[in-house]
Amino acid sequence: MSTPEFQQFDPKVAAGLQGPADAAGGIAAFLRIEHVEVSAGSLHARVPVRDELLTPFRNLHGGVLAALCDHVLGTVLYPVIPRGAWAATTEFKINYLAAVTTGALDARATIISLTKRTAVVRIDVENEGRLVCAAQGTVSVVKPS
Amino acid sequence: MSTPEFQQFDPKVAAGLQGPADAAGGIAAFLRIEHVEVSAGSLHARVPVRDELLTPFRNLHGGVLAALCDHVLGTVLYPVIPRGAWAATTEFKINYLAAVTTGALDARATIISLTKRTAVVRIDVENEGRLVCAAQGTVSVVKPS
Amino acid sequence: MSTPEFQQFDPKVAAGLQGPADAAGGIAAFLRIEHVEVSAGSLHARVPVRDELLTPFRNLHGGVLAALCDHVLGTVLYPVIPRGAWAATTEFKINYLAAVTTGALDARATIISLTKRTAVVRIDVENEGRLVCAAQGTVSVVKPS
Amino acid sequence: MSTPEFQQFDPKVAAGLQGPADAAGGIAAFLRIEHVEVSAGSLHARVPVRDELLTPFRNLHGGVLAALCDHVLGTVLYPVIPRGAWAATTEFKINYLAAVTTGALDARATIISLTKRTAVVRIDVENEGRLVCAAQGTVSVVKPS
Repeated sequence: MSTPEFQQFDPKVAAGLQGPADAAGGIAAFLRIEHVEVSAGSLHARVPVRDELLTPFRNLHGGVLAALCDHVLGTVLYPVIPRGAWAATTEFKINYLAAVTTGALDARATIISLTKRTAVVRIDVENEGRLVCAAQGTVSVVKPS
Repeated sequence: MSTPEFQQFDPKVAAGLQGPADAAGGIAAFLRIEHVEVSAGSLHARVPVRDELLTPFRNLHGGVLAALCDHVLGTVLYPVIPRGAWAATTEFKINYLAAVTTGALDARATIISLTKRTAVVRIDVENEGRLVCAAQGTVSVVKPS
Repeated sequence: MSTPEFQQFDPKVAAGLQGPADAAGGIAAFLRIEHVEVSAGSLHARVPVRDELLTPFRNLHGGVLAALCDHVLGTVLYPVIPRGAWAATTEFKINYLAAVTTGALDARATIISLTKRTAVVRIDVENEGRLVCAAQGTVSVVKPS
Repeated sequence: MSTPEFQQFDPKVAAGLQGPADAAGGIAAFLRIEHVEVSAGSLHARVPVRDELLTPFRNLHGGVLAALCDHVLGTVLYPVIPRGAWAATTEFKINYLAAVTTGALDARATIISLTKRTAVVRIDVENEGRLVCAAQGTVSVVKPS
């Protein structure tokens, strides 16, 4: 598959995103999302599975995966869009592939298409060596007026 | 649109779901999801928007809406499936229609199709009188073996 | 659900769309799509199920429903966008709810959100009194430059 | 990404699928879908872009891409499911990434998850060396009763 070329990539923005995602607000802090690796067009984020994130059936609440996908979908854009521009997620679709009970979630977001105004991103989430979630969505690039 | 007929409806299950959704696990408690009204084939849940749920841009983090949709998508099934069966969300799609900054989220889930093994559900989320989010997804009805 | 207000509605455009959709190109003609009713924010289109549209299993090929949904998703926009503007479908999601073998497909598209640049549309397809398909998607409104 | 292991692969079924997809019914024949390569867990299909598939705006009708994705989504399953079983597409989501006006559509479907009853498949469609469409969907494996 041909990957898009990124007309710009800001390594400082990428470096600044590295680490805990707490700056993104309370839900990212609650989930304890950590940005493991940020590069041009891709983002690897991790969430440790802990008891508080499980349902009474002892499976991970799907909302954790949905919120994690939403988070990486927008965040992967920042290093490749102009400073001051805002990545607004407009829609996404998510498939749950296997139940999660322990370990960590490793979410990898990849930009598969980027124009001046819109990006399309795919996300894989792995847990204990298995693919547990696959998502695909659209992000609008909003420039400051 | 023809609505599906529900072969069973358990008013005790519906009544038991009423109120705070904390029993669903930590993310429902963190979001402070409340089940406002539970009936045959539909569920109305509410989340108060508070500062902790906003991003640094002062908009609601999309992950809150995604997690809320995931939550109501499965929960709406319980009053119309056999006791002991489990509603496992297999996939959904979500469109964000407007930014949210204050007030409350009112999510309404409606079952539009139900067979013995699968349901399809639509969700509308309103905020301050506007539709801010629309979702559609699939839930598997898993019976205890 | 609050429906969007349409700042403009061109009854001549709506009237011009009425009838066979052959002007949309060969696939609309092949499917024999007919626009039954065109109004502000909604479109009802019909396709007669014929042998040629079935698979060897004698069920309607899903591609017929997918192409029909794609068609109404964009077409429903024309009466409410400026003359000369173009409705470009950017994405949609479709759930198949029941097998189709005979009769007609009645697709109803409804605009649930409309801004200057983007619309979100929901679609129901009925066959023989049952809901057989539910879709939701996004359309970009492209103005002539 | 870890790819699923296929417990069975029937090379005769794969070989039988090779070539024009006309056996799938009239819409596959109308689109002139050709199965270029069929292997364990993946399918490459091609559609030549011809004038009849364009809209009056001289762009490919989105319904062609939607129907093509629906087609490969189910077809990719046959070589890896039991003889006599049926691949029923239950849902999919599609993003259109670029306008198509000429050349050929090269659709590649890949199974990313497979259990006894369900598969999840991703699809890329390329045209003239660019990615023009990305899709993701679910297929039910229905066994003869």
